[in-house]
Amino acid sequence: MATPVKVYGPPMSTALSRVLACLHEKDVEFQLIPINMSKGDHKKPEFLKIQPFGQVPAFQDESITLFESRSICRYICEKHAEKGNKRLYGTNPLEKASIDQWIEAEGQSFNPPSSTLVFQLAFAPRMKLKQDPKAIKQNEDKLQKVLEVYEKRLGESRFLAGDEFSLADLSHLPNTQYLVTAANRAEIFTSKQNVGRWWDEISSRDSWKKVVEMQKSS
Amino acid sequence: MATPVKVYGPPMSTALSRVLACLHEKDVEFQLIPINMSKGDHKKPEFLKIQPFGQVPAFQDESITLFESRSICRYICEKHAEKGNKRLYGTNPLEKASIDQWIEAEGQSFNPPSSTLVFQLAFAPRMKLKQDPKAIKQNEDKLQKVLEVYEKRLGESRFLAGDEFSLADLSHLPNTQYLVTAANRAEIFTSKQNVGRWWDEISSRDSWKKVVEMQKSS
Ligand SMILES: N[C@@H](CCC(=O)N[C@@H](CS)C(=O)NCC(=O)O)C(=O)O
Ligand SMILES: N[C@@H](CCC(=O)N[C@@H](CS)C(=O)NCC(=O)O)C(=O)O
Repeated sequence: MATPVKVYGPPMSTALSRVLACLHEKDVEFQLIPINMSKGDHKKPEFLKIQPFGQVPAFQDESITLFESRSICRYICEKHAEKGNKRLYGTNPLEKASIDQWIEAEGQSFNPPSSTLVFQLAFAPRMKLKQDPKAIKQNEDKLQKVLEVYEKRLGESRFLAGDEFSLADLSHLPNTQYLVTAANRAEIFTSKQNVGRWWDEISSRDSWKKVVEMQKSS
Repeated sequence: MATPVKVYGPPMSTALSRVLACLHEKDVEFQLIPINMSKGDHKKPEFLKIQPFGQVPAFQDESITLFESRSICRYICEKHAEKGNKRLYGTNPLEKASIDQWIEAEGQSFNPPSSTLVFQLAFAPRMKLKQDPKAIKQNEDKLQKVLEVYEKRLGESRFLAGDEFSLADLSHLPNTQYLVTAANRAEIFTSKQNVGRWWDEISSRDSWKKVVEMQKSS
């Protein structure tokens, strides 16, 4: 049996839970190594050796140490092409290019406003930090614009990169989960017919339910 | 002979020039299709069909239409693995994963502050828009922090992903070029020994010199 891969950080991290969802989809055994962020363990020299930006997640298997959640997901899919969900990163170069394009759209267009909103609406209150109403409004507007593009796209195909669930859809789960639940912003998604349908479908996958369970029990 | 691939947009766009640098490195023939951004051609329905976010670049070859500059670059390297610079995206899965990780670091950590600075310092004055001194200061601080990580990394290896120039280094060229020249911020880079050495080396590649020429003459 292969040694489980190692994932460093807490499941409540959005970036880390992207990797967990991918590991569940691909049926790859892993070991979660806790990093106590409230104690600043992610800024300590030992951790900076494997994640030089001092962020979670970090990832290790027998062959490589990696950071950046989206790159870790791509690597897991490439390495374990024949395990678990075989279509997660496509089955030919054209499918892969289309999936990759929508992962980039998530990282470049969807993530900036949505991660700011997750911080402002879900984490700031817990950390007793003051919210910034101007930043909230600006990023809600930005997110709306991005979701209008998604609404159109998801009227043409069942998932972002085509007719199969892929790494591109998966990559949206962590931020959207917080926005829909902890941040009370479900309506931004459910008010759009295709986006609402898509969110229902991707968030009810077993892989994602397992991640949500891990977040709750941590 | 293969039909040249099509790239839509003006060479002065940072995202588009990332794709041009890649095409030059890979020796792939292309045709540049002008998009008049000052006339708003990038927001017209015809263009939105190929780039739904209304941004440049967009890309087409016989098999596929793509947006997102970093995805376009990955696709070009995968498709033309045997052309031009064969090491640009690595020659095995581990090299590729490391390159991909540093492309993500560029997209996620380097690009946000540097693209804001490029806009504020280089484009706003040309467009007669008011600069935002607070945003400039904040993003200079953020960029400094990112470059401290790069300084350390580039003390361990000649290039970001290892001992060979790769797509990861290339991806930094467009913003850095504007920061060093038009935005008068050379010092942020040259004051750091390894970053300065790296910038000298990557910016003097023929592929990049050709892109700078295209920018000047457009
Ligand atoms: N682009 C990185 C982002 C990682 C990230 O932002 N992690 C957050 C938690 S979700 C973190 O570690 N924040 C602490 C910090 O930045 O100091 C990735 O996708 O892995
Ligand atoms: N993430 C995209 C960014 C594209 C982008 O921001 N393009 C700019 C020019 S460099 C643009 O089209 N701006 C016009 C706009 O956003 O309306 C990519 O890498 O292709």
